[in-house]
Amino acid sequence: MPTFVQIIEFIGTFAFAISGIRLASAKQFDWFGAYVVGLATAIGGGTIRDVLLDVTPFWMTNPMYLICSGLALLWVILFGKYLIHLNNTFFIFDSIGLALFTMVGVGKTLALGHPYWVAIIMGGITGSAGGVLRDVFINEIPLIFRREIYAMACVIGGIMFWICDLLGLTLIMTQIISGISVFIVRFLAVKYQICLPILKGEH
Amino acid sequence: MPTFVQIIEFIGTFAFAISGIRLASAKQFDWFGAYVVGLATAIGGGTIRDVLLDVTPFWMTNPMYLICSGLALLWVILFGKYLIHLNNTFFIFDSIGLALFTMVGVGKTLALGHPYWVAIIMGGITGSAGGVLRDVFINEIPLIFRREIYAMACVIGGIMFWICDLLGLTLIMTQIISGISVFIVRFLAVKYQICLPILKGEH
Amino acid sequence: MPTFVQIIEFIGTFAFAISGIRLASAKQFDWFGAYVVGLATAIGGGTIRDVLLDVTPFWMTNPMYLICSGLALLWVILFGKYLIHLNNTFFIFDSIGLALFTMVGVGKTLALGHPYWVAIIMGGITGSAGGVLRDVFINEIPLIFRREIYAMACVIGGIMFWICDLLGLTLIMTQIISGISVFIVRFLAVKYQICLPILKGEH
Repeated sequence: MPTFVQIIEFIGTFAFAISGIRLASAKQFDWFGAYVVGLATAIGGGTIRDVLLDVTPFWMTNPMYLICSGLALLWVILFGKYLIHLNNTFFIFDSIGLALFTMVGVGKTLALGHPYWVAIIMGGITGSAGGVLRDVFINEIPLIFRREIYAMACVIGGIMFWICDLLGLTLIMTQIISGISVFIVRFLAVKYQICLPILKGEH
Repeated sequence: MPTFVQIIEFIGTFAFAISGIRLASAKQFDWFGAYVVGLATAIGGGTIRDVLLDVTPFWMTNPMYLICSGLALLWVILFGKYLIHLNNTFFIFDSIGLALFTMVGVGKTLALGHPYWVAIIMGGITGSAGGVLRDVFINEIPLIFRREIYAMACVIGGIMFWICDLLGLTLIMTQIISGISVFIVRFLAVKYQICLPILKGEH
Repeated sequence: MPTFVQIIEFIGTFAFAISGIRLASAKQFDWFGAYVVGLATAIGGGTIRDVLLDVTPFWMTNPMYLICSGLALLWVILFGKYLIHLNNTFFIFDSIGLALFTMVGVGKTLALGHPYWVAIIMGGITGSAGGVLRDVFINEIPLIFRREIYAMACVIGGIMFWICDLLGLTLIMTQIISGISVFIVRFLAVKYQICLPILKGEH
C-alpha cells in the first residue's frame, strides 16, 4: 500500500510533468521530446539538489517518477484538448506538488547535517529548478524569474520550517505547517496576482 | 597501440565535436567558443552521466577527448568549406559514435550495480545529452526534442542490451548486437525520414 | 578579521553578481529572478567545478556568497541608474574577480591530485561558466563564445601557473604572477579590442 506522502508525491510529479509536456506541445515537440521535458520538469529540481548534496539522485532508486511522467504524456496525448478545462485542478495539484517537493528538499538537506540556510535554498531548488530546466529546453526565459511568486513560496516555506523547528514543534507538525504555508503563498499570489517588483536599472 | 574500441571512440568523439563546431560556426562563434561547443557536444553526455553516477567524469582521466575536439576545430578551420561534401561520411561517423557512446553508458551503469532501467536512461543521456547542451549553448530548441529519432535509438539499443543479456549472450555479443541496433535504427530513421508523432495539445 | 584573499573574493563575487543582475534588469526580471541570475553568475562556475571534482560546493559552507549577491541586488535597486558611470570600476573589479576565481579553481584542483591540464580547465570553468549560466538564463547566446577574450584569459593564467611551478617558484609567487597575467590579458583584450578569429565554415 502506498503511504499518504507517496500518493501526494505521485500527484505532484504528475502535475509537474503535465506542465512540461503542455509547454512542449505548444512548441511542437514530438512525443519523445515532450516526455523528456515533462520528466525534466518533474525530477530536475530534485536531481540538481541531490547532485549538490552528493547523494544518489532520488529517481534512480525508484522507477515511479519515470512511469508517472509517462502516464502524464499518455494523458496529454489522449485528453490534451480537454486539459484547458482542468486548469484550476492542475493549478491545485501543481501547488500541492510544490509544497511537498519543498518539504522533501528541506528535510533531506537537514538530515544530511547541513545548516538551515542551505536547506532553505535546497527546498527552493527542489521546487523550482525543474521549471527552469523546462524553460531552458523550450528556449524561453524562465518564467519564475519574471512574473511569478513561485520559488519565493518555497523560500517562505523553508523559513517557516525553521521557525516551527525553533519553536520546538514536532517534525510532522513542522512539515504540515510549512507545507501549507507554501501552498497558501502560491495560491494567494496567483489569485490576487501578487508579484515582486520588476528590477529597473540602466543596462 | 590503441584498441579497436579506442579507435571507434576517437572517431565518435571527432564526429560529435564536428557537429558542435559546425553549428557554432553558423552562429559566428569565435574559435574558442566553437571549441567549447564542440567539446560540450562530445563529452557533455558522458559528463552528465558520470555526475549522476557519482564517478569521476571520464575525460578528466585522459586528455584524448580534449585533443580530439581540438583536432576537430582545426579540421573545420582548415577544411570547413569542403565539409558539406562529407555530410554522408560524418553522418556515418556520428551514428557509429552514438552507438558506441550508448554501449559505454549502459555498460558503465550496469557495472556500478544499477538496475537495467537506470542503465537504459544513462545510455540515452550518454548518447544525446551532449547534443542538448550544444543546442542550449547556441540558443536553439534542442533538435532531438523535435524532429529526430536520435535519443530513441539509444533507448532501443539499451533495451536490446537487456534482451541479449536475458537471452544469456556473452558481453561482447550483447554489445555488438545492441550497438548495431542503435546504428540501424538511426540510419533507417534518417534514410526513410521516420519521425515520432508531434504532440498536439491545447496550450 | 577577513584576510586579503577574502576581501578580494568578496569584491569579485560582488562584481560578478552585479553583471548578472544588470543583464537581468535589462530583461525585466523581478527582484527574485535578478537575485538568482546574479547568484548564478557569481557562484555558478565554482559550483560546476566542485560538482565535477566531487567535493561539496564551496558556497554551501559559507553564507558569505549569498549575502554578497544580496548586497549586489540591493546596490542595483538603490543605485541602478548611476551604475552606468561606474562601468570602468566594475570592469576592474570583474577582472580582479576573474583572476582570483581562476587561481582558486586551479589551486583547488591541483590540491585534489589532478594533473595540470585538468586544473587549467577547472580554472577556466571557475572563471567563466557562471557567465555562461547567466546568458542561458536570460536566453542569449553566451557572450564569451562570441566576442570576448575572457575564458582564454583564464586558460592563459592556468598555463602561467604551470610554468611558474615548473620554474620552482613558491606557491604565493606562482599565484600572484599567474593571477596578474589573467588580469593583464583581460585588460589588454578589452582596451585594444583584441578578439579571437570568428569561425567561418559551411553550415
